[in-house]
Amino acid sequence: MAAKLLEGKAIAQDIRERLRGRIEELTRQGTQPGLGVVLVGSDPASSTYVNAKERACEELGIKSVDHRLPEDTPETELLRIVDELNRDDTVHGILVQLPLPDQISADRVTMAIDPDKDVDGFHPVNLGRLLRGQECFWPCTPHGVLEILRAGGVKPEGKHAVIVGRSNIVGKPLATMLMQKNETGNATVTVCHTRTPDLSVYTRQADILIAAAGKAATVTGDMLKPGAVAIDVGVNRVDDATKKKGYRLVGDIDFASASEVASMITPVPGGVGPLTITMLLANTVLSAERHRERRGR
Amino acid sequence: MAAKLLEGKAIAQDIRERLRGRIEELTRQGTQPGLGVVLVGSDPASSTYVNAKERACEELGIKSVDHRLPEDTPETELLRIVDELNRDDTVHGILVQLPLPDQISADRVTMAIDPDKDVDGFHPVNLGRLLRGQECFWPCTPHGVLEILRAGGVKPEGKHAVIVGRSNIVGKPLATMLMQKNETGNATVTVCHTRTPDLSVYTRQADILIAAAGKAATVTGDMLKPGAVAIDVGVNRVDDATKKKGYRLVGDIDFASASEVASMITPVPGGVGPLTITMLLANTVLSAERHRERRGR
Repeated sequence: MAAKLLEGKAIAQDIRERLRGRIEELTRQGTQPGLGVVLVGSDPASSTYVNAKERACEELGIKSVDHRLPEDTPETELLRIVDELNRDDTVHGILVQLPLPDQISADRVTMAIDPDKDVDGFHPVNLGRLLRGQECFWPCTPHGVLEILRAGGVKPEGKHAVIVGRSNIVGKPLATMLMQKNETGNATVTVCHTRTPDLSVYTRQADILIAAAGKAATVTGDMLKPGAVAIDVGVNRVDDATKKKGYRLVGDIDFASASEVASMITPVPGGVGPLTITMLLANTVLSAERHRERRGR
Repeated sequence: MAAKLLEGKAIAQDIRERLRGRIEELTRQGTQPGLGVVLVGSDPASSTYVNAKERACEELGIKSVDHRLPEDTPETELLRIVDELNRDDTVHGILVQLPLPDQISADRVTMAIDPDKDVDGFHPVNLGRLLRGQECFWPCTPHGVLEILRAGGVKPEGKHAVIVGRSNIVGKPLATMLMQKNETGNATVTVCHTRTPDLSVYTRQADILIAAAGKAATVTGDMLKPGAVAIDVGVNRVDDATKKKGYRLVGDIDFASASEVASMITPVPGGVGPLTITMLLANTVLSAERHRERRGR
């Protein structure tokens, strides 16, 4: 084990402590930040995630407005609730937990959220503003990756950042962010994916390697340049009879081999994961501040 | 000269001929496509460009609604005109020629255009939908690049596309398009720019090299992999005493040396340029078709 561990939990804790002061200040001024959370159905992973978000809100003093809807909720009903949250002045951020059941179009629901409350950063207006380098809500997981780099003292400028995976929630927005002309960007960026013929050709060039492919062991130690910074966004279940649940969680990077080659690496769990929720809270606080500012004008 | 010339003019002509039929059909059905064109001031390059657009509209039977405004037009007046064009049912596309004078915010004007008439594809909603891989208006110059590749029989899938330049109108949207999971995408994409320490490290790996940096001789023959496809988006003036005007136009790629190494190359002028206007016309026709469809429903 040569690599330094980039522990998301501690980084997230630092950010949350700084948020606490802003939340107290806002609440004193009469604008307690509020997050509307909508969960449709009872998918265990989604429930766990939504519970963690609500617990985090409570700990920091963010008001959480909770909607738990049955699996067979019609799209019209969900859109009605989104509209209600859009109009609710005490709600500054809206989170509709994905995935949604088949009868509901995730695209239509995402489009229905007021872009000024889109703290997930998935609305096209936000993604378009992100691409243009304008003020917007940064999507939470890519934002978390940038926070981990910052905490590790890794400046992307002039580095070669190689991203494995091109999802709408991680790969594509993160690529956009890392290539921007600003201090968290300025990296040369390569995006690889399932149609990349020989992944290792690119991963071996990475000063910063970000794996967000959704598949265990997509990147192994021999695919890294010595001294690379390895950020693992993946969360995958692999069978493990020694565990009570029968499985354990691993990332997209083979930790054992990669940690011998990289200079820094994130663990899974406990790496990027804790940052994602934290950046959602950060966006909610930012939204409440903007809301207050707009009302003040 | 080893490289095959990818002549944009001929490719554009083909596309325009196919548009002509759709325009005739739409006009027969009572929906002649209409393009609103706004030019503020008298910048010679902008005037030339706007004139060329209007001539192209006329040739194909697209109605062109022309607004030529003085240099000192206030932003409020321009926004009023944009609003008028937004409401005009005979206008399916709106083009506000950039750059705009200092007293006008290009961002605010872009945001004011109805995304359903944003045939330039610069509105954040369009760029966000582009990033998400959803239906939208493709920005004209990147779209032109894809059309040139298609006409040359170059399939991006599995290739390494290296883009030099990260502008909002070419580099960033083109990167987004080439990495999408679809038949015009599926390339491994690298974006380089002014903060890339050694550009040739990346350009030498390119199966498809796209130069959109805005600087002459950014890419020379020795920076290309033999057999690469070289697409030149740049248009730069260089002094030339042998020309009547005292200058000539060159791209970002040094044509003389690059054409000895590449397998295909676009000339400047006559490469990507003619496609840009053509794709604007194509978006206007598409918009008229969508408009008709929405009214039919």
